[in-house]
Amino acid sequence: MKIKELDSICIIGPGLIGGSIGLALRGGGFSGRIIGVTSKPRDGRKAVLCGAIDESFRALAAIPPTRLFVIATPLAATPAVLRSLDILLQQAPAVVTDVGSTKREIVRVASRELSDPTCFLGGHPMAGSERCGVEFARADLFRGATTILTPTRGTHPAAVRIVAQMWRTAGASVTYMSPAEHDRAVATTSHLPHAVAATLMRHCAEHADLSLAGKGLLDITRIASGDAEMWTQILLSNRDHLASALRATARELDRLVASLRRGDGTTIRRVLARAAAVRDEWVARKYHRRDWTT
Amino acid sequence: MKIKELDSICIIGPGLIGGSIGLALRGGGFSGRIIGVTSKPRDGRKAVLCGAIDESFRALAAIPPTRLFVIATPLAATPAVLRSLDILLQQAPAVVTDVGSTKREIVRVASRELSDPTCFLGGHPMAGSERCGVEFARADLFRGATTILTPTRGTHPAAVRIVAQMWRTAGASVTYMSPAEHDRAVATTSHLPHAVAATLMRHCAEHADLSLAGKGLLDITRIASGDAEMWTQILLSNRDHLASALRATARELDRLVASLRRGDGTTIRRVLARAAAVRDEWVARKYHRRDWTT
Repeated sequence: MKIKELDSICIIGPGLIGGSIGLALRGGGFSGRIIGVTSKPRDGRKAVLCGAIDESFRALAAIPPTRLFVIATPLAATPAVLRSLDILLQQAPAVVTDVGSTKREIVRVASRELSDPTCFLGGHPMAGSERCGVEFARADLFRGATTILTPTRGTHPAAVRIVAQMWRTAGASVTYMSPAEHDRAVATTSHLPHAVAATLMRHCAEHADLSLAGKGLLDITRIASGDAEMWTQILLSNRDHLASALRATARELDRLVASLRRGDGTTIRRVLARAAAVRDEWVARKYHRRDWTT
Repeated sequence: MKIKELDSICIIGPGLIGGSIGLALRGGGFSGRIIGVTSKPRDGRKAVLCGAIDESFRALAAIPPTRLFVIATPLAATPAVLRSLDILLQQAPAVVTDVGSTKREIVRVASRELSDPTCFLGGHPMAGSERCGVEFARADLFRGATTILTPTRGTHPAAVRIVAQMWRTAGASVTYMSPAEHDRAVATTSHLPHAVAATLMRHCAEHADLSLAGKGLLDITRIASGDAEMWTQILLSNRDHLASALRATARELDRLVASLRRGDGTTIRRVLARAAAVRDEWVARKYHRRDWTT
């Protein structure tokens, strides 16, 4: 099974991420039908109008036969979606993947809810926006981004191949980790920044006149505008790793407080210089290199 | 004395901020001569080439008579600049202002170094960039931004008038605070975000694979790319207020850790929802309103 040979793909929850997958697959040359499933007819119509999907259905039971399902709903909806999917899969086997921000829980839920869990492969594109909804979907959302796939020992190799092909067609590069490795990694690179941004935003709103704040605070708090309900689910589903990362960060802030109180310019300079150096190197690798290749 | 009637303005240190003042004044209709002073001839030539200044001098002693001086050097250079200026001011009175990120120290230094401290008025534009140098200067850097001026009881009213006029000509709005009020406010809106961004960047570099990180981490750490030496001076000069703000933020992170460990979704949702709401409201006030007026 190759992605270009598929007659159709079904995106369950064609919002910002699901809709961007539709747009990016079309942009990447996928010529099959892109089917959307959403319980909200208005969202479905918007997704069709945006060109993110070809057709929208209100329920999985109603869709034509499809061999690749992408779950792009909020985390809390996933168990119910998997139960509905299981009924379809018993009639016609298919590959199922998702885009959720944590992977241990969903992989556990999939092996519980699916009669044949080998067809399920967890996925997580390292791309997004603080905004929700298909109206913010973009065909280039995944360009230059990495999607982490989390096969387990039981995952069928064909499922891994087709989902990896799908992400490459959508413009992302693909890397593999176990669900546990994934959750540990994104606790630091994604969930910690979100929790810090939200904490900082609240602190500033309570302790300062925001009308004085400039672009620095604007950018550092951008992700804090993300949907509170969606992020509560994400943070809770990775609470062990996130709590450790947050605690370590709080201790590092305490050390900086101690350096400031001692007037220890040498230490402060070292902290700031190291932060600037690692960021500049990271940005150069991640973004500048793309200028040469795209 | 009105800004439009001045024959010339002298910008000491025509870098990112000083150079942007030159460009913004020209863009705002200032027709006098814009003189730059920098000990580095190469920087002076660059500033002239960028159109930020009309002419560059290596020393204050060499410049033609000028009635308004803007000190835009790093904080550490300011005492020496004030001493050199004092010699000129004894021959021909002028107004002196600065753009430094903290105000208690500079106001104290000015009253010590200047024979007539009434001519000095501290200023701080709430605009900048993580980049240094006149090549990043922009004529619109101050548009929509606020400049805080910190007159004291001794400041000459004519100095306040001319400096406020200068900032309005450059596109900024102007607000007034005491040096102490200023330093308390910016500890939260500017120095705290910088310290948090740097701490987070270091933490992520040490605990995660940055190649997995996306735009969220990129934006939240943008200001951490700022010049380490310049920021060390800034953070140290406001260390009392900054240490309090950092300590309070670390405690808030600890409370979030506790909520995560208890699995307390209600509290986490409240924190995230409040952060998103205050940010969205702030952004709407600060930025969307400008769409209507500019």
